[in-house]
Amino acid sequence: MSGKVYLVGAGPGDPELLTVKAFRLLREADVVLHDDLVTPEVLNLIAPGTEIQNVGKRCGSKTIRQEEINFLMVTRAASGLQVVRLKSGDPLIFGRAGEEMEALRRAGIEYEVVPGVTSALGAAAAAGISLTHRHMSSSLVLTAGHRAAGNDDADWGWAAASKSTLVVYMPGSNYDETAGRLIAAGFAGETPCAIISKATTREQRIFRTTVTELSGAAELASPTLLVVGEVVRLADGRLVEEAAHLQQQELGSAIEQSVTRERELLA
Amino acid sequence: MSGKVYLVGAGPGDPELLTVKAFRLLREADVVLHDDLVTPEVLNLIAPGTEIQNVGKRCGSKTIRQEEINFLMVTRAASGLQVVRLKSGDPLIFGRAGEEMEALRRAGIEYEVVPGVTSALGAAAAAGISLTHRHMSSSLVLTAGHRAAGNDDADWGWAAASKSTLVVYMPGSNYDETAGRLIAAGFAGETPCAIISKATTREQRIFRTTVTELSGAAELASPTLLVVGEVVRLADGRLVEEAAHLQQQELGSAIEQSVTRERELLA
Repeated sequence: MSGKVYLVGAGPGDPELLTVKAFRLLREADVVLHDDLVTPEVLNLIAPGTEIQNVGKRCGSKTIRQEEINFLMVTRAASGLQVVRLKSGDPLIFGRAGEEMEALRRAGIEYEVVPGVTSALGAAAAAGISLTHRHMSSSLVLTAGHRAAGNDDADWGWAAASKSTLVVYMPGSNYDETAGRLIAAGFAGETPCAIISKATTREQRIFRTTVTELSGAAELASPTLLVVGEVVRLADGRLVEEAAHLQQQELGSAIEQSVTRERELLA
Repeated sequence: MSGKVYLVGAGPGDPELLTVKAFRLLREADVVLHDDLVTPEVLNLIAPGTEIQNVGKRCGSKTIRQEEINFLMVTRAASGLQVVRLKSGDPLIFGRAGEEMEALRRAGIEYEVVPGVTSALGAAAAAGISLTHRHMSSSLVLTAGHRAAGNDDADWGWAAASKSTLVVYMPGSNYDETAGRLIAAGFAGETPCAIISKATTREQRIFRTTVTELSGAAELASPTLLVVGEVVRLADGRLVEEAAHLQQQELGSAIEQSVTRERELLA
């Protein structure tokens, strides 16, 4: 008897933001193949005795190719096992699930997609930002920060020209470059934006700034997500830190570190 | 002691696609104020004795204004109750949560947003469509079918010009008009698209066609969602019905109804 592969969204990080179905499948799985960005709190829910493998593209120095992940899924399921392929957020947004579904179809393996809360929604909820708004933004563009082949930031330009909210997944840590791309795309320097780091986890930080001020911003811990647009103006002031505040805080902490180091050297 | 308002996403329809947190809050709530599109299967999970109110904009002939919903939330929470404001999909996408958060802040009521699986993700999972794809689509545009003030379909035009996938929420039942808008926006007639009706529920139907053929398509039960773009070509053939098949089926059913009516009249 052949097994089955479930392509499952793990949600943005908080284990309570798993769907009831994802939680059930994690408890029932024989094998869990997960991405790097799935949080330890989610992985802790997997039943003891389950085979767990990190197939993230960045796990240590080892690089696992997509073909190897496909091979693992197919062979495990073909031997009768229930396989959960666990991806952070939702599997069908920036998750390469298209390629994995093709591989499973070609191999004749039964599969099912279980949607999840994509990171943009987790981050927006954490910051109290309504991604669309009757009077401000009638569309939402989800895009990735890295430049794909043939991707010349046309999407950023369009979001700037229209009343859309732009969410950039994986914007990278070069905020200077990102701010430059946003300006080049036509965003006004005073357009509000928010960087959300480790959304919905205990280490979450939300930092509101403007496109201009983004370049000088202190780097936040990965994974981050960038939300750009007028709706960010309405973010909940009790949930977000303002740019000036954060920069000061980081500066304060940097000064403190220097002083500590100086004391150590003098001791 | 003041209560709290939870703006909660109910997900796309299947009660197992609620988040674990949404499920917990539904069980603990004193009051649930829900939209029309929340499915009966989800509402069945609410604990007995809970005050449940449909505040959907289309509930029967009665029209509830946004101000009345805000008033209900504020007064119930101010009297110490735990209020769940339940919205289908995710609260921050086409859910007017922005206006509700503003009202709660103005009234000094504590609130929290609990994200959910937005309908586009539920529909895509049901159809086996990867919304982004390394070789096909590097961005995703979520937009609403109705024309908002100042919305001149610029977003549709951009999605057509770029390699983005376009998802139209609430496309309405006039597929002829929708197809015309897509063509006017610059989509080629042969661009694949899918209409998904009642995604993730037992009555779900998925129907793949092209922009040209969309105009002649049989009307599906609301709520529907339209996905347009090359990624639709990769939809799972076992999950979707092709246009020709559906049209034939509907035609067959229409003929059957006529014959039945004729027999009744002749009897």
